[in-house]
Amino acid sequence: MYEAALTLYGEAGWAGFSLDAVARRARVGKAGLYSRWGSKERLIVDALAAWIPPRPSGGGPGPLREELIRLATAIFDSYFDPVGLVYLRAQLEAMIYPDLFGQALERLQRERIRLGRAIVLRAVERGELPEGTSPALVLDSVSGILSNHVLSTPASQRRALLGRRDEYVEQTVDFVLSAVGYRAQGRDGLLSL
Amino acid sequence: MYEAALTLYGEAGWAGFSLDAVARRARVGKAGLYSRWGSKERLIVDALAAWIPPRPSGGGPGPLREELIRLATAIFDSYFDPVGLVYLRAQLEAMIYPDLFGQALERLQRERIRLGRAIVLRAVERGELPEGTSPALVLDSVSGILSNHVLSTPASQRRALLGRRDEYVEQTVDFVLSAVGYRAQGRDGLLSL
Repeated sequence: MYEAALTLYGEAGWAGFSLDAVARRARVGKAGLYSRWGSKERLIVDALAAWIPPRPSGGGPGPLREELIRLATAIFDSYFDPVGLVYLRAQLEAMIYPDLFGQALERLQRERIRLGRAIVLRAVERGELPEGTSPALVLDSVSGILSNHVLSTPASQRRALLGRRDEYVEQTVDFVLSAVGYRAQGRDGLLSL
Repeated sequence: MYEAALTLYGEAGWAGFSLDAVARRARVGKAGLYSRWGSKERLIVDALAAWIPPRPSGGGPGPLREELIRLATAIFDSYFDPVGLVYLRAQLEAMIYPDLFGQALERLQRERIRLGRAIVLRAVERGELPEGTSPALVLDSVSGILSNHVLSTPASQRRALLGRRDEYVEQTVDFVLSAVGYRAQGRDGLLSL
């Protein structure tokens, strides 16, 4: 049910969201939906609360460059997937309907901030980044450059961009890393870059 | 009419957009709207085609830092305005409905790219940026960092962010400038930074 709700929301946004449309998409009766949630507000808030956004897959912590490339690839891919667009859609709509989306989103936003902060702080501990590096700046940069680039690429050039996804993601991560003073650490603790 | 259409679209998105709703908001008769546009697709395409997105105001060309601060301030402010959100909304929806929004948006996207390219190329000519600096990278960075930061700020902290808008915009621009090797040029052509 939540998946049908989130897919519909990702595609149509809040104005196109209704219990009837979710019931049609999930192929369930409307009566059950109405008796369980009663309103479309309660359903979307529950669906967002239960949602686990796309996460980078595979690999453990560090080195920083590898972690960021995995994260950036997951972010890049999410823009090409209606459910992946849920996060961006909800952020945009939270600017207009803060009472409805603000709270449901706040958990996701704090979780993202915590995830990003952990990645950056581990890198500082390993000596890959200077003390005092701003986690928000690193994450806003990687995520923002990607989203701005994907979204502002004209539809007619989108396929070409997809074709060089890995190269583009690596370039972006390397640009941000050099901007924040990244120093790769070799296994023996010496600089390897 | 176009303003009513764009405001409605910025708030409600494509799924909430209809000729009836535009007529109500613009306080005009539906009959006129139907006879002129016939469908909501044609109205939104015309409204986007006629739209001039928020532009930085005041000041002429250069120096680069000043131009980028004006541009970044206009972008920052646009996220707090339903009509300003039209561009982001249409970009998101063009990922889902490329046939409808792709073409209307492509003009705006190309215009933005041209504007950004002109700013960066002038700065290269003045010696403020190294030869070969990528205009897309500079613009994706400034615009993306801001949008990611504003949109991922929890609703409860948004007022605080607005309160330090100028400081935040300057920090962001200075971060991007240092990342791309900016050198301010004094009036006498010597480095002033």
